[in-house]
Amino acid sequence: MDTQASSIVVTAYRRVPPFARGFVRDLRVRWALEEAGLQYRTRLIGAADRASAEYLAWQPFGQVPAFEQDGLKLFESGAIVLHIAEQSAALMPADAAGRARVWAWSFAALNSVEPAVQQLAEIDLFHEDEAWAGQRRPQVEAAVRRRLDALAAWLGESEYLEGAYTAADLLMYDVLRNLGRTGLITQYPRLEAYCDRCGARPAFRKALHDQLADFVPDPVAD
Amino acid sequence: MDTQASSIVVTAYRRVPPFARGFVRDLRVRWALEEAGLQYRTRLIGAADRASAEYLAWQPFGQVPAFEQDGLKLFESGAIVLHIAEQSAALMPADAAGRARVWAWSFAALNSVEPAVQQLAEIDLFHEDEAWAGQRRPQVEAAVRRRLDALAAWLGESEYLEGAYTAADLLMYDVLRNLGRTGLITQYPRLEAYCDRCGARPAFRKALHDQLADFVPDPVAD
Repeated sequence: MDTQASSIVVTAYRRVPPFARGFVRDLRVRWALEEAGLQYRTRLIGAADRASAEYLAWQPFGQVPAFEQDGLKLFESGAIVLHIAEQSAALMPADAAGRARVWAWSFAALNSVEPAVQQLAEIDLFHEDEAWAGQRRPQVEAAVRRRLDALAAWLGESEYLEGAYTAADLLMYDVLRNLGRTGLITQYPRLEAYCDRCGARPAFRKALHDQLADFVPDPVAD
Repeated sequence: MDTQASSIVVTAYRRVPPFARGFVRDLRVRWALEEAGLQYRTRLIGAADRASAEYLAWQPFGQVPAFEQDGLKLFESGAIVLHIAEQSAALMPADAAGRARVWAWSFAALNSVEPAVQQLAEIDLFHEDEAWAGQRRPQVEAAVRRRLDALAAWLGESEYLEGAYTAADLLMYDVLRNLGRTGLITQYPRLEAYCDRCGARPAFRKALHDQLADFVPDPVAD
Protein backbone atom coordinates (compact mmCIF):
# COMPACT_ATOMS: atom_id res chain seq x y z
CA MET A 1 0.00 0.00 0.00
CA ASP A 2 1.50 3.27 -1.13
CA THR A 3 1.49 5.88 1.59
CA GLN A 4 1.26 8.56 -1.10
CA ALA A 5 -2.00 7.01 -2.17
CA SER A 6 -4.11 8.78 0.41
CA SER A 7 -3.76 11.87 -1.76
CA ILE A 8 -6.19 10.33 -4.27
CA VAL A 9 -9.70 11.80 -4.32
CA VAL A 10 -12.68 10.39 -6.24
CA THR A 11 -16.04 12.13 -6.46
CA ALA A 12 -19.28 10.19 -6.04
CA TYR A 13 -22.94 11.12 -5.69
CA ARG A 14 -24.33 11.58 -2.20
CA ARG A 15 -27.61 10.06 -3.28
CA VAL A 16 -29.11 8.46 -6.37
CA PRO A 17 -32.42 6.68 -7.06
CA PRO A 18 -32.47 3.05 -5.86
CA PHE A 19 -32.09 1.58 -9.36
CA ALA A 20 -28.79 3.43 -9.86
CA ARG A 21 -27.13 2.29 -6.65
CA GLY A 22 -24.18 0.12 -7.50
CA PHE A 23 -24.22 1.33 -11.10
CA VAL A 24 -22.73 4.82 -10.89
CA ARG A 25 -19.48 5.17 -12.77
CA ASP A 26 -17.28 6.03 -9.82
CA LEU A 27 -17.53 2.26 -9.24
CA ARG A 28 -15.08 1.69 -12.10
CA VAL A 29 -12.56 3.98 -10.53
CA ARG A 30 -12.99 2.55 -7.03
CA TRP A 31 -12.55 -0.94 -8.48
CA ALA A 32 -9.37 0.00 -10.34
CA LEU A 33 -7.95 1.56 -7.20
CA GLU A 34 -8.73 -1.59 -5.21
CA GLU A 35 -7.06 -3.79 -7.84
CA ALA A 36 -4.03 -1.51 -7.81
CA GLY A 37 -3.90 -1.43 -3.99
CA LEU A 38 -4.14 2.36 -3.91
CA GLN A 39 -5.98 4.09 -1.09
CA TYR A 40 -8.38 6.93 -1.82
CA ARG A 41 -10.99 9.08 -0.24
CA THR A 42 -14.30 10.09 -1.70
CA ARG A 43 -15.79 13.52 -2.01
CA LEU A 44 -19.56 13.11 -2.04
CA ILE A 45 -21.42 15.66 -4.11
CA GLY A 46 -25.00 16.77 -4.63
CA ALA A 47 -26.93 18.82 -7.16
CA ALA A 48 -25.53 22.18 -6.04
CA ASP A 49 -21.94 20.94 -6.24
CA ARG A 50 -22.49 19.53 -9.72
CA ALA A 51 -23.59 22.89 -11.05
CA SER A 52 -20.81 24.89 -9.37
CA ALA A 53 -18.15 26.60 -11.46
CA GLU A 54 -15.48 24.92 -9.34
CA TYR A 55 -16.81 21.43 -10.09
CA LEU A 56 -17.42 22.12 -13.78
CA ALA A 57 -13.79 23.19 -14.10
CA TRP A 58 -12.93 19.69 -12.83
CA GLN A 59 -15.69 17.64 -14.51
CA PRO A 60 -17.03 19.66 -17.47
CA PHE A 61 -20.26 17.64 -17.73
CA GLY A 62 -21.12 17.99 -14.04
CA GLN A 63 -21.08 14.24 -13.50
CA VAL A 64 -19.09 11.72 -11.49
CA PRO A 65 -16.44 10.49 -11.22
CA ALA A 66 -13.87 13.22 -11.10
CA PHE A 67 -10.42 12.26 -9.86
CA GLU A 68 -7.41 13.96 -8.36
CA GLN A 69 -3.98 12.54 -7.67
CA ASP A 70 -0.91 14.56 -6.75
CA GLY A 71 -2.41 17.71 -8.24
CA LEU A 72 -3.48 16.09 -11.52
CA LYS A 73 -7.20 16.52 -12.06
CA LEU A 74 -8.95 14.10 -14.39
CA PHE A 75 -12.46 13.21 -15.50
CA GLU A 76 -14.02 10.45 -17.67
CA SER A 77 -14.10 7.05 -16.00
CA GLY A 78 -12.27 5.41 -18.93
CA ALA A 79 -9.35 7.81 -18.77
CA ILE A 80 -9.17 7.62 -14.99
CA VAL A 81 -9.19 3.81 -14.93
CA LEU A 82 -6.42 3.70 -17.52
CA HIS A 83 -4.43 6.35 -15.65
CA ILE A 84 -4.62 4.13 -12.57
CA ALA A 85 -3.81 1.06 -14.66
CA GLU A 86 -0.58 2.68 -15.84
CA GLN A 87 0.50 2.59 -12.20
CA SER A 88 -0.21 -1.09 -11.58
CA ALA A 89 0.88 -4.40 -13.11
CA ALA A 90 -2.39 -5.81 -11.76
CA LEU A 91 -4.28 -3.89 -14.45
CA MET A 92 -1.87 -3.37 -17.34
CA PRO A 93 0.99 -5.36 -18.91
CA ALA A 94 4.37 -3.67 -19.02
CA ASP A 95 5.14 -4.09 -22.74
CA ALA A 96 4.07 -1.46 -25.26
CA ALA A 97 2.17 -3.89 -27.48
CA GLY A 98 0.28 -5.37 -24.55
CA ARG A 99 -0.60 -1.91 -23.30
CA ALA A 100 -1.90 -0.86 -26.72
CA ARG A 101 -4.15 -3.94 -26.79
CA VAL A 102 -5.59 -2.98 -23.39
CA TRP A 103 -6.31 0.50 -24.70
CA ALA A 104 -8.03 -1.03 -27.74
CA TRP A 105 -10.31 -3.22 -25.64
CA SER A 106 -10.99 -0.35 -23.25
CA PHE A 107 -12.25 1.78 -26.12
CA ALA A 108 -14.16 -1.25 -27.41
CA ALA A 109 -15.96 -1.45 -24.06
CA LEU A 110 -16.79 2.24 -23.90
CA ASN A 111 -17.27 3.19 -27.57
CA SER A 112 -18.44 -0.02 -29.31
CA VAL A 113 -20.34 -1.90 -26.59
CA GLU A 114 -21.53 0.65 -24.05
CA PRO A 115 -23.51 2.95 -26.39
CA ALA A 116 -25.87 0.11 -27.38
CA VAL A 117 -26.07 -1.25 -23.83
CA GLN A 118 -26.77 2.22 -22.52
CA GLN A 119 -29.57 2.80 -25.02
CA LEU A 120 -31.24 -0.45 -23.95
CA ALA A 121 -30.85 0.33 -20.25
CA GLU A 122 -32.20 3.83 -20.82
CA ILE A 123 -35.33 2.50 -22.52
CA ASP A 124 -35.98 -0.02 -19.75
CA LEU A 125 -35.29 2.37 -16.88
CA PHE A 126 -36.77 5.65 -18.10
CA HIS A 127 -39.07 5.14 -21.07
CA GLU A 128 -40.76 1.78 -20.61
CA ASP A 129 -44.25 3.30 -20.67
CA GLU A 130 -43.71 5.54 -23.70
CA ALA A 131 -45.19 4.42 -27.00
CA TRP A 132 -41.96 4.81 -28.96
CA ALA A 133 -40.02 2.53 -26.64
CA GLY A 134 -41.98 -0.58 -27.63
CA GLN A 135 -41.20 0.01 -31.29
CA ARG A 136 -37.57 0.95 -30.79
CA ARG A 137 -36.54 -1.61 -28.19
CA PRO A 138 -36.21 -4.64 -30.52
CA GLN A 139 -33.86 -2.67 -32.80
CA VAL A 140 -31.66 -1.69 -29.89
CA GLU A 141 -31.69 -5.22 -28.48
CA ALA A 142 -30.57 -6.49 -31.89
CA ALA A 143 -27.68 -4.01 -31.85
CA VAL A 144 -26.68 -5.20 -28.38
CA ARG A 145 -26.84 -8.83 -29.52
CA ARG A 146 -24.49 -8.08 -32.42
CA ARG A 147 -21.94 -6.78 -29.93
CA LEU A 148 -22.44 -9.73 -27.59
CA ASP A 149 -22.08 -12.18 -30.50
CA ALA A 150 -18.75 -10.60 -31.43
CA LEU A 151 -17.56 -10.50 -27.85
CA ALA A 152 -18.49 -14.13 -27.16
CA ALA A 153 -16.75 -15.19 -30.37
CA TRP A 154 -13.62 -13.29 -29.40
CA LEU A 155 -13.51 -14.66 -25.87
CA GLY A 156 -13.96 -18.26 -26.92
CA GLU A 157 -12.61 -20.34 -24.07
CA SER A 158 -10.38 -17.53 -22.77
CA GLU A 159 -10.76 -16.30 -19.24
CA TYR A 160 -10.17 -12.65 -20.11
CA LEU A 161 -10.03 -10.44 -23.20
CA GLU A 162 -6.25 -10.42 -23.58
CA GLY A 163 -4.86 -13.35 -21.61
CA ALA A 164 -4.51 -12.12 -18.04
CA TYR A 165 -7.03 -9.84 -16.36
CA THR A 166 -6.54 -6.15 -17.24
CA ALA A 167 -8.26 -2.78 -16.98
CA ALA A 168 -10.10 -3.62 -20.20
CA ASP A 169 -11.92 -6.48 -18.47
CA LEU A 170 -12.80 -4.13 -15.63
CA LEU A 171 -14.40 -1.69 -18.06
CA MET A 172 -16.06 -4.36 -20.19
CA TYR A 173 -17.64 -6.10 -17.20
CA ASP A 174 -18.87 -2.82 -15.75
CA VAL A 175 -20.61 -2.19 -19.10
CA LEU A 176 -22.05 -5.70 -19.42
CA ARG A 177 -23.48 -5.81 -15.91
CA ASN A 178 -25.94 -3.12 -16.96
CA LEU A 179 -27.64 -5.85 -19.00
CA GLY A 180 -28.45 -7.80 -15.85
CA ARG A 181 -32.15 -6.95 -15.93
CA THR A 182 -32.54 -7.99 -19.57
CA GLY A 183 -31.46 -11.61 -19.18
CA LEU A 184 -29.40 -11.30 -22.37
CA ILE A 185 -26.10 -12.35 -20.83
CA THR A 186 -27.53 -15.66 -19.66
CA GLN A 187 -28.08 -16.53 -23.32
CA TYR A 188 -24.31 -16.43 -23.85
CA PRO A 189 -22.73 -19.03 -21.53
CA ARG A 190 -19.20 -17.81 -22.24
CA LEU A 191 -20.12 -14.23 -21.46
CA GLU A 192 -22.00 -15.31 -18.38
CA ALA A 193 -18.93 -17.17 -17.14
CA TYR A 194 -16.78 -14.13 -17.98
CA CYS A 195 -19.10 -11.83 -16.05
CA ASP A 196 -19.18 -14.22 -13.09
CA ARG A 197 -15.39 -14.33 -13.14
CA CYS A 198 -15.02 -10.54 -13.16
CA GLY A 199 -17.78 -9.97 -10.64
CA ALA A 200 -16.27 -12.44 -8.17
CA ARG A 201 -13.03 -10.49 -7.87
CA PRO A 202 -12.54 -9.29 -4.28
CA ALA A 203 -11.60 -5.82 -5.51
CA PHE A 204 -14.95 -5.53 -7.33
CA ARG A 205 -16.91 -6.70 -4.29
CA LYS A 206 -15.07 -4.20 -2.10
CA ALA A 207 -15.64 -1.33 -4.56
CA LEU A 208 -19.34 -2.18 -4.90
CA HIS A 209 -19.74 -2.38 -1.13
CA ASP A 210 -18.03 0.97 -0.69
CA GLN A 211 -20.13 2.72 -3.34
CA LEU A 212 -23.31 1.42 -1.71
CA ALA A 213 -22.11 2.36 1.77
CA ASP A 214 -21.42 5.96 0.73
CA PHE A 215 -24.99 6.80 -0.29
CA VAL A 216 -26.99 8.62 2.34
CA PRO A 217 -29.38 6.07 3.86
CA ASP A 218 -32.55 8.13 3.64
CA PRO A 219 -34.10 9.89 0.66
CA VAL A 220 -33.35 13.40 1.86
CA ALA A 221 -32.79 16.32 -0.46
CA ASP A 222 -29.16 17.22 -0.88
CA MET B 1 8.80 11.54 -42.75
CA ASP B 2 9.76 8.28 -41.10
CA THR B 3 10.90 5.68 -43.61
CA GLN B 4 9.56 2.99 -41.30
CA ALA B 5 6.15 4.55 -41.65
CA SER B 6 5.28 2.80 -44.89
CA SER B 7 4.76 -0.32 -42.80
CA ILE B 8 1.51 1.19 -41.46
CA VAL B 9 -1.71 -0.34 -42.80
CA VAL B 10 -5.24 1.02 -42.21
CA THR B 11 -8.37 -0.77 -43.32
CA ALA B 12 -11.23 1.11 -44.99
CA TYR B 13 -14.43 0.13 -46.75
CA ARG B 14 -14.32 -0.33 -50.49
CA ARG B 15 -17.79 1.14 -50.80
CA VAL B 16 -20.43 2.70 -48.55
CA PRO B 17 -23.76 4.42 -49.22
CA PRO B 18 -23.39 8.05 -50.36
CA PHE B 19 -24.44 9.52 -46.98
CA ALA B 20 -21.59 7.71 -45.25
CA ARG B 21 -18.82 8.89 -47.53
CA GLY B 22 -16.47 11.12 -45.60
CA PHE B 23 -17.90 9.88 -42.30
CA VAL B 24 -16.38 6.42 -41.90
CA ARG B 25 -14.13 6.11 -38.89
CA ASP B 26 -10.93 5.30 -40.74
CA LEU B 27 -10.99 9.07 -41.38
CA ARG B 28 -9.89 9.67 -37.80
CA VAL B 29 -6.92 7.42 -38.23
CA ARG B 30 -5.95 8.85 -41.63
CA TRP B 31 -6.18 12.34 -40.12
CA ALA B 32 -3.97 11.45 -37.16
CA LEU B 33 -1.40 9.91 -39.49
CA GLU B 34 -1.39 13.07 -41.63
CA GLU B 35 -0.94 15.29 -38.57
CA ALA B 36 1.91 13.06 -37.41
CA GLY B 37 3.52 12.99 -40.86
CA LEU B 38 3.40 9.20 -41.02
CA GLN B 39 2.84 7.44 -44.31
CA TYR B 40 0.41 4.56 -44.57
CA ARG B 41 -1.32 2.38 -47.07
CA THR B 42 -4.95 1.32 -47.01
CA ARG B 43 -6.37 -2.14 -47.30
CA LEU B 44 -9.87 -1.80 -48.74
CA ILE B 45 -12.34 -4.39 -47.57
CA GLY B 46 -15.83 -5.55 -48.50
CA ALA B 47 -18.56 -7.63 -46.92
CA ALA B 48 -16.79 -10.97 -47.41
CA ASP B 49 -13.58 -9.66 -45.81
CA ARG B 50 -15.47 -8.27 -42.84
CA ALA B 51 -16.94 -11.66 -42.03
CA SER B 52 -13.71 -13.62 -42.47
CA ALA B 53 -12.04 -15.30 -39.51
CA GLU B 54 -8.79 -13.56 -40.42
CA TYR B 55 -10.36 -10.10 -40.26
CA LEU B 56 -12.37 -10.81 -37.10
CA ALA B 57 -9.14 -11.81 -35.39
CA TRP B 58 -7.90 -8.30 -36.22
CA GLN B 59 -11.13 -6.31 -35.77
CA PRO B 60 -13.48 -8.36 -33.56
CA PHE B 61 -16.60 -6.40 -34.60
CA GLY B 62 -15.93 -6.74 -38.33
CA GLN B 63 -15.75 -2.98 -38.80
CA VAL B 64 -13.17 -0.42 -39.89
CA PRO B 65 -10.65 0.86 -39.10
CA ALA B 66 -8.19 -1.85 -38.20
CA PHE B 67 -4.54 -0.82 -37.99
CA GLU B 68 -1.16 -2.47 -38.17
CA GLN B 69 2.24 -0.99 -37.47
CA ASP B 70 5.46 -2.96 -37.08
CA GLY B 71 3.55 -6.13 -36.31
CA LEU B 72 1.24 -4.54 -33.72
CA LYS B 73 -2.39 -5.04 -34.68
CA LEU B 74 -4.94 -2.66 -33.23
CA PHE B 75 -8.62 -1.83 -33.59
CA GLU B 76 -10.95 0.90 -32.23
CA SER B 77 -10.42 4.30 -33.79
CA GLY B 78 -9.92 5.98 -30.40
CA ALA B 79 -7.13 3.62 -29.38
CA ILE B 80 -5.48 3.82 -32.80
CA VAL B 81 -5.55 7.63 -32.86
CA LEU B 82 -4.02 7.78 -29.40
CA HIS B 83 -1.41 5.17 -30.33
CA ILE B 84 -0.42 7.40 -33.24
CA ALA B 85 -0.53 10.47 -31.01
CA GLU B 86 1.99 8.90 -28.64
CA GLN B 87 4.42 9.03 -31.57
CA SER B 88 3.95 12.69 -32.43
CA ALA B 89 4.29 15.99 -30.60
CA ALA B 90 1.78 17.36 -33.15
CA LEU B 91 -0.97 15.41 -31.39
CA MET B 92 0.12 14.93 -27.80
CA PRO B 93 2.08 16.95 -25.24
CA ALA B 94 5.19 15.33 -23.79
CA ASP B 95 4.42 15.75 -20.09
CA ALA B 96 2.50 13.09 -18.16
CA ALA B 97 -0.17 15.48 -16.88
CA GLY B 98 -0.78 16.93 -20.33
CA ARG B 99 -1.03 13.46 -21.82
CA ALA B 100 -3.55 12.39 -19.18
CA ARG B 101 -5.70 15.43 -20.01
CA VAL B 102 -5.67 14.46 -23.69
CA TRP B 103 -6.78 10.97 -22.76
CA ALA B 104 -9.59 12.44 -20.65
CA TRP B 105 -10.91 14.59 -23.49
CA SER B 106 -10.54 11.74 -25.93
CA PHE B 107 -12.78 9.58 -23.77
CA ALA B 108 -15.11 12.56 -23.38
CA ALA B 109 -15.45 12.75 -27.15
CA LEU B 110 -16.10 9.04 -27.60
CA ASN B 111 -17.95 8.07 -24.43
CA SER B 112 -19.76 11.25 -23.30
CA VAL B 113 -20.48 13.12 -26.55
CA GLU B 114 -20.53 10.55 -29.34
CA PRO B 115 -23.23 8.22 -27.96
CA ALA B 116 -25.84 11.00 -27.99
CA VAL B 117 -24.65 12.38 -31.35
CA GLN B 118 -24.70 8.90 -32.82
CA GLN B 119 -28.26 8.28 -31.60
CA LEU B 120 -29.42 11.48 -33.26
CA ALA B 121 -27.62 10.73 -36.52
CA GLU B 122 -29.02 7.21 -36.51
CA ILE B 123 -32.58 8.48 -36.17
CA ASP B 124 -32.14 10.99 -38.99
CA LEU B 125 -30.35 8.61 -41.34
CA PHE B 126 -32.11 5.31 -40.79
CA HIS B 127 -35.40 5.78 -38.97
CA GLU B 128 -36.85 9.09 -40.05
CA ASP B 129 -40.05 7.51 -41.37
CA GLU B 130 -40.70 5.27 -38.37
CA ALA B 131 -43.38 6.38 -35.93
CA TRP B 132 -41.17 6.02 -32.85
CA ALA B 133 -38.52 8.34 -34.23
CA GLY B 134 -40.77 11.42 -34.10
CA GLN B 135 -41.47 10.84 -30.42
CA ARG B 136 -37.93 9.96 -29.45
CA ARG B 137 -36.00 12.54 -31.44
CA PRO B 138 -36.65 15.57 -29.19
CA GLN B 139 -35.36 13.64 -26.17
CA VAL B 140 -32.17 12.70 -27.97
CA GLU B 141 -31.71 16.22 -29.29
CA ALA B 142 -32.04 17.52 -25.73
CA ALA B 143 -29.33 15.09 -24.61
CA VAL B 144 -27.06 16.31 -27.42
CA ARG B 145 -27.72 19.92 -26.43
CA ARG B 146 -26.70 19.21 -22.85
CA ARG B 147 -23.36 17.95 -24.12
CA LEU B 148 -22.92 20.92 -26.48
CA ASP B 149 -23.79 23.35 -23.67
CA ALA B 150 -21.06 21.82 -21.51
CA LEU B 151 -18.56 21.76 -24.33
CA ALA B 152 -19.19 25.37 -25.33
CA ALA B 153 -18.87 26.46 -21.71
CA TRP B 154 -15.58 24.60 -21.37
CA LEU B 155 -14.13 26.00 -24.57
CA GLY B 156 -15.02 29.57 -23.80
CA GLU B 157 -12.68 31.68 -25.90
CA SER B 158 -10.08 28.90 -26.20
CA GLU B 159 -9.03 27.68 -29.61
CA TYR B 160 -8.77 24.05 -28.56
CA LEU B 161 -9.82 21.83 -25.64
CA GLU B 162 -6.48 21.89 -23.81
CA GLY B 163 -4.47 24.83 -25.08
CA ALA B 164 -2.73 23.63 -28.23
CA TYR B 165 -4.35 21.30 -30.75
CA THR B 166 -4.18 17.62 -29.73
CA ALA B 167 -5.60 14.23 -30.64
CA ALA B 168 -8.58 15.02 -28.41
CA ASP B 169 -9.61 17.86 -30.73
CA LEU B 170 -9.28 15.51 -33.67
CA LEU B 171 -11.66 13.04 -32.07
CA MET B 172 -14.07 15.68 -30.78
CA TYR B 173 -14.39 17.38 -34.14
CA ASP B 174 -14.89 14.10 -35.93
CA VAL B 175 -17.78 13.43 -33.55
CA LEU B 176 -19.29 16.91 -33.83
CA ARG B 177 -19.23 17.00 -37.62
CA ASN B 178 -21.87 14.27 -37.61
CA LEU B 179 -24.27 16.96 -36.40
CA GLY B 180 -23.82 18.91 -39.64
CA ARG B 181 -27.24 18.00 -41.01
CA THR B 182 -29.03 19.03 -37.82
CA GLY B 183 -27.93 22.66 -37.76
CA LEU B 184 -27.30 22.38 -34.02
CA ILE B 185 -23.68 23.48 -34.13
CA THR B 186 -24.59 26.79 -35.79
CA GLN B 187 -26.56 27.63 -32.63
CA TYR B 188 -23.30 27.60 -30.68
CA PRO B 189 -20.96 30.23 -32.18
CA ARG B 190 -17.98 29.05 -30.15
CA LEU B 191 -18.47 25.46 -31.21
CA GLU B 192 -18.99 26.51 -34.80
CA ALA B 193 -15.70 28.43 -34.73
CA TYR B 194 -14.03 25.43 -33.10
CA CYS B 195 -15.37 23.10 -35.78
CA ASP B 196 -14.31 25.49 -38.55
CA ARG B 197 -10.83 25.68 -37.01
CA CYS B 198 -10.44 21.89 -36.82
CA GLY B 199 -11.97 21.27 -40.23
CA ALA B 200 -9.66 23.79 -41.92
CA ARG B 201 -6.53 21.89 -40.91
CA PRO B 202 -4.67 20.71 -44.02
CA ALA B 203 -4.22 17.25 -42.50
CA PHE B 204 -7.99 16.92 -42.14
CA ARG B 205 -8.63 18.05 -45.73
CA LYS B 206 -6.04 15.58 -46.99
CA ALA B 207 -7.48 12.70 -44.96
CA LEU B 208 -11.03 13.49 -46.11
CA HIS B 209 -9.92 13.69 -49.73
CA ASP B 210 -8.12 10.37 -49.44
CA GLN B 211 -11.06 8.59 -47.83
CA LEU B 212 -13.37 9.83 -50.57
CA ALA B 213 -10.89 8.92 -53.29
CA ASP B 214 -10.60 5.35 -52.05
CA PHE B 215 -14.25 4.44 -52.52
CA VAL B 216 -15.04 2.61 -55.74
CA PRO B 217 -16.67 5.15 -58.04
CA ASP B 218 -19.68 3.06 -59.08
CA PRO B 219 -22.23 1.27 -57.00
CA VAL B 220 -21.03 -2.24 -57.81
CA ALA B 221 -21.35 -5.17 -55.46
CA ASP B 222 -18.17 -5.98 -53.63
